[in-house]
Amino acid sequence: MTADNLPFQRAEYDRRIALTRAAMAARGLDLVIVSDPSNMAWLTGYDGWSFYTHQAVVLAPEGEPLWWGRGMDAAGAHRTVWMEGGNIIGYADHLVQNPEAHPMGDLATRLAERGWAKGRIGAELDNYYYSAAAHAALAAALPGVALVDATGLVNWQRAIKSAAEVEFIRRAAAIVTAMHGVIRAAAEPGLPKNLLVAEILKAGVVGADGHWGDYPAIVPMAPSGMDATAPHLTWDDRPLKAGEATFFEIAGVYRRYHAPQSRTIFLGTPPDRYRRAEAAVLEATGAALEVARPGNTCGQVAEAFNGTLNRLGFSKDSRCGYSIGLSYPPDWGERTMSFRATDRTVLQPGMVFHFMPALWLDDGGIEITEPILIGEGGAEKLCATPGGLWVKG
Amino acid sequence: MTADNLPFQRAEYDRRIALTRAAMAARGLDLVIVSDPSNMAWLTGYDGWSFYTHQAVVLAPEGEPLWWGRGMDAAGAHRTVWMEGGNIIGYADHLVQNPEAHPMGDLATRLAERGWAKGRIGAELDNYYYSAAAHAALAAALPGVALVDATGLVNWQRAIKSAAEVEFIRRAAAIVTAMHGVIRAAAEPGLPKNLLVAEILKAGVVGADGHWGDYPAIVPMAPSGMDATAPHLTWDDRPLKAGEATFFEIAGVYRRYHAPQSRTIFLGTPPDRYRRAEAAVLEATGAALEVARPGNTCGQVAEAFNGTLNRLGFSKDSRCGYSIGLSYPPDWGERTMSFRATDRTVLQPGMVFHFMPALWLDDGGIEITEPILIGEGGAEKLCATPGGLWVKG
Repeated sequence: MTADNLPFQRAEYDRRIALTRAAMAARGLDLVIVSDPSNMAWLTGYDGWSFYTHQAVVLAPEGEPLWWGRGMDAAGAHRTVWMEGGNIIGYADHLVQNPEAHPMGDLATRLAERGWAKGRIGAELDNYYYSAAAHAALAAALPGVALVDATGLVNWQRAIKSAAEVEFIRRAAAIVTAMHGVIRAAAEPGLPKNLLVAEILKAGVVGADGHWGDYPAIVPMAPSGMDATAPHLTWDDRPLKAGEATFFEIAGVYRRYHAPQSRTIFLGTPPDRYRRAEAAVLEATGAALEVARPGNTCGQVAEAFNGTLNRLGFSKDSRCGYSIGLSYPPDWGERTMSFRATDRTVLQPGMVFHFMPALWLDDGGIEITEPILIGEGGAEKLCATPGGLWVKG
Repeated sequence: MTADNLPFQRAEYDRRIALTRAAMAARGLDLVIVSDPSNMAWLTGYDGWSFYTHQAVVLAPEGEPLWWGRGMDAAGAHRTVWMEGGNIIGYADHLVQNPEAHPMGDLATRLAERGWAKGRIGAELDNYYYSAAAHAALAAALPGVALVDATGLVNWQRAIKSAAEVEFIRRAAAIVTAMHGVIRAAAEPGLPKNLLVAEILKAGVVGADGHWGDYPAIVPMAPSGMDATAPHLTWDDRPLKAGEATFFEIAGVYRRYHAPQSRTIFLGTPPDRYRRAEAAVLEATGAALEVARPGNTCGQVAEAFNGTLNRLGFSKDSRCGYSIGLSYPPDWGERTMSFRATDRTVLQPGMVFHFMPALWLDDGGIEITEPILIGEGGAEKLCATPGGLWVKG
């Protein structure tokens, strides 16, 4: 049974499988066990909120991948993946969250049935959904197998987007532009934060330009005032206040493809230090995006940004961007390239980043960020959202 | 710096720390490293979407717990936890998602500084946020330490809720009741699914009875027709159709405390098999909730449910409920007790469950579920949502 609603054509999945197999061959892997739900979806189309139980896609050098997961979720795989039904295998429900019996034993049995329980097998050792206990159970059930680290192996194949993927990200970018429009229109002193977030979430799922919105891998982060000295606080019902800045780090999402973007709004007249921070961020962003072109490295982008920022009297000790694309919670980043000085990855057309020049200051935060596409001629901002620090009455 | 907006009084946190220390002593643990964000929040109040990077709360037999995480998130810890600032430690940003250097080495250094790098240390080996690589890096950096499994150790201390926690869950239950009211009012043939989900999400964050809504640990699951043969599909923009059932598995959330509840709506006249399934589920639910009282076991609840269901010609091969409370993505369950035949946990007043008698049939699904509180006199349904299969139009 083939899914009637697959996001991409089969040729796109063939491309992905071929890229992944080439990476497996280069690493001398006989098999790769993929637990990252983003990688599972990228390879097979699988889409369901089932990653809170152990599951995987398994890829050998030939044939279709295997989807393996909880028995009830095999039904979801039948509805969403491109493979034949015989390549979807569910395990018994008593293995779910049961300290007495780990489902990885079942996976080992399935691998053995296919003659796959041998040689060098890669697993994503530093993924959220591949726990220490899962690794121990799998290793114990696969004697004679070299179970080696393949964290990031699939993620790296995702770095350069196909035209179809870029189109999905453009739709997501239109959605986040609309979401920021809601913030810009509605934010005012006295408005309880949760009522504003409710409208943001609604706008994100309504979508834009005729394209519906999917859920983001991270919920809106929307801290005000001193809470905005921290990057990852969410919301409560305290009203927005005059004299205070709030940043909104949100993403538009189209069929799991993300376009994250942040803006900061100041209600009232911003103090000089906010204006200086804004000016520094914007100038440093301009310098960095000028460098973000094919042939330069991620590290050079970071250096252009940090050099300009430092010259203007500010500093940032965290990366100023990361690769984005298809994602599931808890992270909308691809966990491969980062804009940090030590990252020597060479930029290529089709890469997509969240350029993320956030500053968290002693008394607040300022986030003015952009999803960007590396094109032949340089970096393209994907959103039409008005730039700069937003100031309202 | 103490958080000015802690969800509970200090005495509640003291209770939790004392319970956890007793469990540590019973297991002969000198220290416990807690990576589950739900457990971190339950012990310290920490609240931030930072669990996509490695972080932990560390508890010794005496003194305050230690919060350890990414440098920029230490600012969020200062804003949300009850401990003194000296017990909040951030690590350098170059350790974030960097295959060359794992942050667990930094944690080991911090433990050694405190004289904690010795003896028997428990870690949550089967938690989402404690990867195989994290375990390997920590074990390598803690020679001479017995690093043993403490999965579920803190979770089990959360099983019996305090009065303050029950009040939070009641607020969440009022929110999910309001969310289902939105579904009941708005669902009709032709309505694109995403537009309905947008209203559900909005209602969840607006809140109810004067209490604001927090984000759920799982997004709405809302499959229609054949997609409802699978439990964990989310949504797209296809319109609701006459002659089709859709189930909505959603949760109201107040300050991370969850009240999940599902309802199924049929647009048009349901076929007999739906009515028979509805009747069986309702009768089996009645039988199970009658047994769900202090002194009986989780297994007895499952047996009462399954016995009645089977007698009426249906069967369910998965658990029919699980413990709920404070949660972060990807799961709103507590991952301790389940209503399954083999679970011999004795019910006690103050336990809270999602009673989850979902049936996934060959041609659709029916979910009519209830969050319940185990009281002295038996099970209390926490929601006022109308019961049964909803039929419109």
